[in-house]
Amino acid sequence: MIGKNGKQSHLAVHKPQHLERGARIGVVAPAGNVEPERLQAGVEAMRAEGFEVELAANLFASNGYLAGNPKQRADDLVAFFRRADIGAIFCARGGFGSVQLLPYLSSELREYPKIFVGYSDITVLLNWLRQFCGMVTFHAPMVAMDIARGLNPRSKAYLWQVLTGELREWKVALGEIIRPGRVEAEMIGGCLSLLVTTLGTPYEIDMQGKILFLEDVGEKPYRVERMLTQLKMAGKLDHVAGVLFGDFTNCEGDGPRDIRQIVVDLLGDATYPVVMGMNAGHGRENLALPFGARTALDGNASTLELLESPVA
Amino acid sequence: MIGKNGKQSHLAVHKPQHLERGARIGVVAPAGNVEPERLQAGVEAMRAEGFEVELAANLFASNGYLAGNPKQRADDLVAFFRRADIGAIFCARGGFGSVQLLPYLSSELREYPKIFVGYSDITVLLNWLRQFCGMVTFHAPMVAMDIARGLNPRSKAYLWQVLTGELREWKVALGEIIRPGRVEAEMIGGCLSLLVTTLGTPYEIDMQGKILFLEDVGEKPYRVERMLTQLKMAGKLDHVAGVLFGDFTNCEGDGPRDIRQIVVDLLGDATYPVVMGMNAGHGRENLALPFGARTALDGNASTLELLESPVA
Repeated sequence: MIGKNGKQSHLAVHKPQHLERGARIGVVAPAGNVEPERLQAGVEAMRAEGFEVELAANLFASNGYLAGNPKQRADDLVAFFRRADIGAIFCARGGFGSVQLLPYLSSELREYPKIFVGYSDITVLLNWLRQFCGMVTFHAPMVAMDIARGLNPRSKAYLWQVLTGELREWKVALGEIIRPGRVEAEMIGGCLSLLVTTLGTPYEIDMQGKILFLEDVGEKPYRVERMLTQLKMAGKLDHVAGVLFGDFTNCEGDGPRDIRQIVVDLLGDATYPVVMGMNAGHGRENLALPFGARTALDGNASTLELLESPVA
Repeated sequence: MIGKNGKQSHLAVHKPQHLERGARIGVVAPAGNVEPERLQAGVEAMRAEGFEVELAANLFASNGYLAGNPKQRADDLVAFFRRADIGAIFCARGGFGSVQLLPYLSSELREYPKIFVGYSDITVLLNWLRQFCGMVTFHAPMVAMDIARGLNPRSKAYLWQVLTGELREWKVALGEIIRPGRVEAEMIGGCLSLLVTTLGTPYEIDMQGKILFLEDVGEKPYRVERMLTQLKMAGKLDHVAGVLFGDFTNCEGDGPRDIRQIVVDLLGDATYPVVMGMNAGHGRENLALPFGARTALDGNASTLELLESPVA
């Protein structure tokens, strides 16, 4: 029985094996239903990088906006985790639905640490795999989305070079410092609206001692304030190591109270570093963020540093 | 110290005194900032009903989309509750911000049971006053919104006649029955997106043994599914007496998976009555719903009945 106290997040970290050029990547759709044309564009871009690509059995299943029923989607995911010839699992897209897989998943998956890539709605799975299976996961571009549209040079280089183990450390410049300080910790988080969706449930995310990364898309400022307020009232922001804000894409309002002002009001007196401006999330550049690998958030120099390779 | 277990909701119910024609109604803005013109139209409609209207000291304060800072908004609310010459407190509008008042409120308010009226973002206060102060509250039209636009005849009659004690019982026809059965219980709930905002916080709503009323506005079906899924995963739907769906205004998607289908999928096997089609919420008709008074949800005849006057 998995408890609510999040102790599972202190599981020993299982780094997945690095991805060899020529390896086979499995593509799943744990959330929204997938347009074949967009998927195809992404698959071709992955093949051009020198990988084989295999689509999950139920990838094109559809139930309204969902990619089939929850069991179909969970079965696809579990099947790829179990297969030794699958070097990595990439998600086709977000949307909604990942949370519905959780009742069908078990910590059995910890026996099969494997590169798992996605973001947005996939946030739920990224954090669940880290917290309940001890697995390093990757908040990074998806097949029928960013990869299909074409990654910009840095996003592309960082994604593939980190997954193949060619790039073991990096340091990127961030934006505005809200609170100073420097911390080294592992990172978790992702799409704010999905993180709050776990509150009060058995899948509630444990943020204690972690660098919390947050981004979102298409949420007006008052909604972002509502969600951040919920995290704060739930005590989730009391014991983080730091907070890093990525892109808040199409989150403009029609007045002076913008995302920055909300962050200042809610986190301006934090005792840990708070920095905005990481190029990750739903923006044009989407730098791959490993959850579970050691990173440094520097709220003095305004940088984020990957301190160790997230793959073995 | 207020606990998370919601035992406070079993406080003896304090029915507020009924509203006398000619009484003074105080208007507050616990959430979004208020347009003077729209407020004025609502105030005039209330005066036309034969009431005096007094605006809260900070009613037109503004902080971006918020009606001033949280303390200002809380002070206005507390001041009106304490004043013996104020017969009822109406909210000007929703938006966002009610949840920010909670740290400034205490169960001291239970000493001053008073008619309190609002919905949408005000959902947070309606349920908090019921749960932590034992007060009957009213999910009903707001001054700068429905009242300013002009209430339709039934909404208008039910609102004023119930608050003045002229109408002590009513019975209205609902829409589609999802699950049959008949229950008598008090009602709680309101705007779904605000109810989920309390999950995992000290203000988490206790729905046990209650008829849960749900409505929302401007949320695509996948978001409604996400929020209902969170309520369900949090165990909140396990021990309700019944579920009543009101208007889901501008919640259409672009495919076959609509609100009805989501309700069928998530609550189709419920052991309690589940009925859709209550004319309450953000729609054109907004029937006043008392939270804390005895009501009957009939999932055989598809009716909702008010069984006792919610005012003394």
